[in-house]
Amino acid sequence: MSLDHAATKPHEKLAAHLTGKLDRVNTLIRARMESRHAPRIPEVTAHLVEAGGKRLRPMLTLAAADMCGYGGEFDIHLAATVEFIHTATLLHDDVVDESGQRRGRPTANLLWDNKSSVLVGDYLFSRAFQLMVETGSLRVLDILANASATIAEGEVLQLTAARDLATTEDIYLQIVRGKTAALFSAATEVGGVISGAAEDQIKALFDYGDALGIAFQIVDDLLDYQGESATTGKNVGDDFRERKLTLPVIKAVARADDEERAFWTRTIEKGDQRDGDLDQAFALLDRHNALDRTREDALGWANKAKTSLRQLPDHSVRQMLLDLADYVVARVS
Amino acid sequence: MSLDHAATKPHEKLAAHLTGKLDRVNTLIRARMESRHAPRIPEVTAHLVEAGGKRLRPMLTLAAADMCGYGGEFDIHLAATVEFIHTATLLHDDVVDESGQRRGRPTANLLWDNKSSVLVGDYLFSRAFQLMVETGSLRVLDILANASATIAEGEVLQLTAARDLATTEDIYLQIVRGKTAALFSAATEVGGVISGAAEDQIKALFDYGDALGIAFQIVDDLLDYQGESATTGKNVGDDFRERKLTLPVIKAVARADDEERAFWTRTIEKGDQRDGDLDQAFALLDRHNALDRTREDALGWANKAKTSLRQLPDHSVRQMLLDLADYVVARVS
Repeated sequence: MSLDHAATKPHEKLAAHLTGKLDRVNTLIRARMESRHAPRIPEVTAHLVEAGGKRLRPMLTLAAADMCGYGGEFDIHLAATVEFIHTATLLHDDVVDESGQRRGRPTANLLWDNKSSVLVGDYLFSRAFQLMVETGSLRVLDILANASATIAEGEVLQLTAARDLATTEDIYLQIVRGKTAALFSAATEVGGVISGAAEDQIKALFDYGDALGIAFQIVDDLLDYQGESATTGKNVGDDFRERKLTLPVIKAVARADDEERAFWTRTIEKGDQRDGDLDQAFALLDRHNALDRTREDALGWANKAKTSLRQLPDHSVRQMLLDLADYVVARVS
Repeated sequence: MSLDHAATKPHEKLAAHLTGKLDRVNTLIRARMESRHAPRIPEVTAHLVEAGGKRLRPMLTLAAADMCGYGGEFDIHLAATVEFIHTATLLHDDVVDESGQRRGRPTANLLWDNKSSVLVGDYLFSRAFQLMVETGSLRVLDILANASATIAEGEVLQLTAARDLATTEDIYLQIVRGKTAALFSAATEVGGVISGAAEDQIKALFDYGDALGIAFQIVDDLLDYQGESATTGKNVGDDFRERKLTLPVIKAVARADDEERAFWTRTIEKGDQRDGDLDQAFALLDRHNALDRTREDALGWANKAKTSLRQLPDHSVRQMLLDLADYVVARVS
């Protein structure tokens, strides 16, 4: 390991291990984001696809197939499929959130317009769909169709539940599965399915992706209340200001007395926020240990992810995926 | 026929002939637009699905399968698939066009918001995808994946080409295939494929849907310049005011002298429209016979649709589809 200075983080090790495959995924992505007739499509897509994302989701598919000894070509197709679905949801999310920035760059809806983001997102969904049909596996199609429905359902649920104090941890989990975990678990599961892995291994891959995705999103929501804006690219308290009900606040609300509940109703449900409210929110989160308890949940999901991998054979990639689960929660532990 | 007063229009005859099947399609649509977690989804979907559309696209699938002697269940799934894809594109179109009305009712983006329209559209796409996976036919999936890509590509192309005087009839045709014909032709083609029809019949069904869809859209664009607002639900000249370059204007621009070209550049490309400009546009369309020549194109496509059906066996539904092609252009002939 001492020679391996360039790749010390788990996702970098994965990328180094999968580098030949990832190059082919990138080539396929570039080929399939072309449009003979509408040059706007590759422009908008390139802005996002080339923006230096970690390619985490396609790596999960490649890693799962690699662990299961896959020798074919379709892991490349499925990795590109997963990245296209992810990119399509980002385009639509930015329209829905009226975002102006993503990964420190202006969003496509700002550079072009909302129309382009909606329609290019639709195009990428269709392209993803074409790619997965090429694998010829109905089971893969079924998994990805169900994941797509879960994603869209989670997003709609978030729209209606985000500012509603009646939102429970169960509903939050449903939203998180839609926003993040459904695509993680589909990414790992299809890697196993395409390899013809045993059913208990496919199940383990699904469980790993599901738990990793949930841990990932909980950490993201936690960092909003305790991160450094330099590392997260967000400002502390953005979710509070945008009245997004995430796990820390849900935990605090569940234990709120009448006065505290009135505070959350005014600031989150009614959106009447005043000077000092963010400090007060922190005080209430602190009073109920909400950030610590959220952190424990994230660690619990990361452990669940690692436990799932026990079903899989010993493999260098398995170790990288175990490390990845630790890494995802390391920022808050 | 004299007893058949209730159903004199071809699409009404089709609906009467297919009534049992259509009821099952409607039941399936209602079942699949449910969401356990996000009640906003069926609300938005019902607004559009129950709004009294003619169910033309699902009827095309049912009719094609019926003509080809299909005896299974999956024509119902595919008809619902096609309607879901159609509904999803309507939801996204209304966001893109910033529309406030569709079929004489307020649009979903106005009643709820753009966010709901984008996300519920995504949900319906996913639901469509799940329905077609259930048929177990990779060929059907391939056809519908390609149709979805053509639809999205056509919409993006329209976004960039609509106000560009360099738009040719070829580009217009590409846009029309995306907006309308791709789903018509996929609807008829999958009806044949699911029935195990002979290849020349499947090709004929595709050609019929393609030509019918093109005729349908050209008529729509023509009616914008000569329709009665009572029958079309649009005002004469809306496309001109919205600076949408459609076939009549494309034909007039192609024969424009310098002065006329300056007029179109000012009004369509630059959007500088003044009192009397619509009258001047009509005068230029008239000078180059653009409306008559557009009408001839529509009739040509309707005839092409009818000719395609010669490949198919004599059948009461075939006659209804022949009549439907005539009916589509009857409003302008």
